[in-house]
Amino acid sequence: MSNLDLSYDIVGIGNAIVDIISHENDDFLSRHRLVKNSMSLVDEQTALAIYSEMHPAIQTSGGSAANTMAGISLLGASSGYIGKVKDDELGKFFVHDIEAVGVDHLVTPIPSGLPTARSMVLVTPDGERTMNTYLGASSTLFAEDIDPEIIAAADYLYCEGYIWDVETTKQVIRLAMSIAKESNKKVSFTLSDTFCVERHHQEWLELIAGPIDILFGNEAEFLTLSGCPSLERAIDWIRGQVEIACITEGSKGSTIVTEDQIIKIEAHLVEKVTDSTGAGDLYASGFLYGLIKQFDLQTCGTVGSLVAAEVISHTGARPQSSLNDLVSSTLNL
Amino acid sequence: MSNLDLSYDIVGIGNAIVDIISHENDDFLSRHRLVKNSMSLVDEQTALAIYSEMHPAIQTSGGSAANTMAGISLLGASSGYIGKVKDDELGKFFVHDIEAVGVDHLVTPIPSGLPTARSMVLVTPDGERTMNTYLGASSTLFAEDIDPEIIAAADYLYCEGYIWDVETTKQVIRLAMSIAKESNKKVSFTLSDTFCVERHHQEWLELIAGPIDILFGNEAEFLTLSGCPSLERAIDWIRGQVEIACITEGSKGSTIVTEDQIIKIEAHLVEKVTDSTGAGDLYASGFLYGLIKQFDLQTCGTVGSLVAAEVISHTGARPQSSLNDLVSSTLNL
Repeated sequence: MSNLDLSYDIVGIGNAIVDIISHENDDFLSRHRLVKNSMSLVDEQTALAIYSEMHPAIQTSGGSAANTMAGISLLGASSGYIGKVKDDELGKFFVHDIEAVGVDHLVTPIPSGLPTARSMVLVTPDGERTMNTYLGASSTLFAEDIDPEIIAAADYLYCEGYIWDVETTKQVIRLAMSIAKESNKKVSFTLSDTFCVERHHQEWLELIAGPIDILFGNEAEFLTLSGCPSLERAIDWIRGQVEIACITEGSKGSTIVTEDQIIKIEAHLVEKVTDSTGAGDLYASGFLYGLIKQFDLQTCGTVGSLVAAEVISHTGARPQSSLNDLVSSTLNL
Repeated sequence: MSNLDLSYDIVGIGNAIVDIISHENDDFLSRHRLVKNSMSLVDEQTALAIYSEMHPAIQTSGGSAANTMAGISLLGASSGYIGKVKDDELGKFFVHDIEAVGVDHLVTPIPSGLPTARSMVLVTPDGERTMNTYLGASSTLFAEDIDPEIIAAADYLYCEGYIWDVETTKQVIRLAMSIAKESNKKVSFTLSDTFCVERHHQEWLELIAGPIDILFGNEAEFLTLSGCPSLERAIDWIRGQVEIACITEGSKGSTIVTEDQIIKIEAHLVEKVTDSTGAGDLYASGFLYGLIKQFDLQTCGTVGSLVAAEVISHTGARPQSSLNDLVSSTLNL
C-alpha cells in the first residue's frame, strides 16, 4: 500500500489475477472444449494442463476490476483496489503493476496458502480472448480485508461479477455495496461473462433491483440477464431498473440507457484487434472517469470507447499509452 | 526435457533469464546512472530497487543464447539449450516457453538455492533497451550439467559472451568448446555487450585465435574488441582470425567477413523499432539457420536481417510470428 488516501474517487473489488497470454489457433479451443470469448474457472491441474500446450506466453497483470482501476488512475482520477494475492512471484508482480500506475492496493498479500490467481488467456487470430482462470489466493478475500471507512468515503464503488463465483468473496461485495449505499455513494457493477450471468442469474436480478446504480455488460450478457430475444427488448427491460446501463457491442459501439435517454456511442476504430482482453474493463474505466469528472453521458461513453480501443490494439489488458494524453488530444478536453 | 535427440543441428549455452520489460523515458536511465543499450549485472537488491520504480511490466522469456535457439527452432532446425533455472515460477515459465517452440532444455531446474535469473529491461522511446540482470540460478551452471555426447554430436555449438561473467560458468563454456572442437564441430560465439568485451578482453582474444569459428557482435563490440578506430579497420583486423565474423550495425545492416570476402547485408526495414531487445540474438538465429541449411553467406545474412526485423517490431526478445513462413515467403525458399 502507498499513500493511503481515505477519499478515493473510486474503489474497485475483484479477483486479483495475472494473465498468461498466448496466441493460439481455433483448434486449440476445440481440443480443450473451450467456448470462445468466455471465462472458465479451472483448478490448478487443468490450468497447468492447458499451459503445457500453450505457445510461449507473456505475463501481464490482469483482473477485470483491477484493469478498470488501472485505467481510471491513468486517466487521472484517484482509485483504490481490493483484491487478494499471495506474496509470491506473481503476487509481487501484480502489486508492482497496480501501484506503478498509481492505484492503491488495499489488501495485504497473504504470506502463505493458495498461490496468486492466474488466467490462461488464449487469443485467437480474430483477436477474441478465451480465459481459463485458477482463482487461488483471490478466492480468500474476507470481510475483514475491507476497510468500511474507505468504502464509505469513496464516491464510487465498482464491483466485478466474476468475484461472485466464490461464496465468501460474494459476501465481501454484498457488504461493500451496503456500506456504499448507506453512505449515499454510487454502486457500479459489471456482468463480466455470459456464463457468470447464468450462474448467478436470480441473485443479480435482485442486485439490479437493489443496490446497483450503474451496470456494465456486453450485448450477450444483457440478453442472458434479461432473457430478451433482442437488444432493443433488453434495452427496454433494463431501462429504469438502474440509473445508467452501459451495453458494449464490440465494433458496433455501445449503448447508454437511462430512464429517459438511449444514447448510441460509436466504437473508436482500430486498424487491427490484436487482443480483445480488457476491452470491457477499459470501457468501464473511461465511462466511470467521465462520471467522476461530471462529463455528460455522451462524452463518458466516448472516453470509454477511446480507451477500450487503446487496449485492444496490443496484447494484454492494461493500457500501454498515456491515456490522459490520448483523451485530451482526441476530445480537446 | 522432451524428445531428447542426441544429434541436434545446434546446441546453445547461456544465462537462462526471464525478461521483465517496461517502457521508460531517458531520465529513468540518468537517474539510475545506466548506460543506454548496455547490460549491467546487478544484485537482487538493486534489481528490486529498479523494479520498484518501473512502469507496469510484461514478463517474457529471454536470455541471449536461449532467444537464438528459440529462433533457430522456429525456423525449422533442431536445437538444444543449456542454461540453468530454479524450479520456481519464473523458472517454470522459462522452461515452458523454450520447450513450447521445440527447443530441448537440457539442464534440470534446481529445486532449491538461488532464484531464476531475471533482467529488468528498460525500453526507451527510441526503441533501445538497457538491461539490468540479476544472474541468480543461471550462475550455478557446472561442468556436470552438460552431457559431452550431446555437445560432440551437435553440428554447431553456440556460446553467449554474457555467461563469461561467472568464473564457474566460464569453465563450462571452455569445456563445451573443447568437446566440440575435438569432434570437429563448429564453435560460434557472440560478444554480447561492450562492457562484457572490456571485462574479458584478453581471454576473448585468445578464444578468437583458438576455438571460435564463427563470431557475432555489433559494431561497438567489434571496435572495443579490436581496439580499432573504425569499422573498416576492425574488419581488416578480424579477417582471417575466424572463419566467419558477422558484424551487426542496426539500421545500417550487417557485414559478413571471411578470409576472402566482405559481404554487406542490408537491414530489413521495419516501420517502427518498438523494442530492440533480441535483435542481435535473432540475427544469429537466422544466420546460423542459414549455415545449417547450407545457404550461401549472402542468404544467411538476409535471413538474419529478416528475423531480427520481426523481433524489434514488438516488445520482447522472442519471435511472435511464424519465422518459417516469414522466411519462405520473403526469400521464395
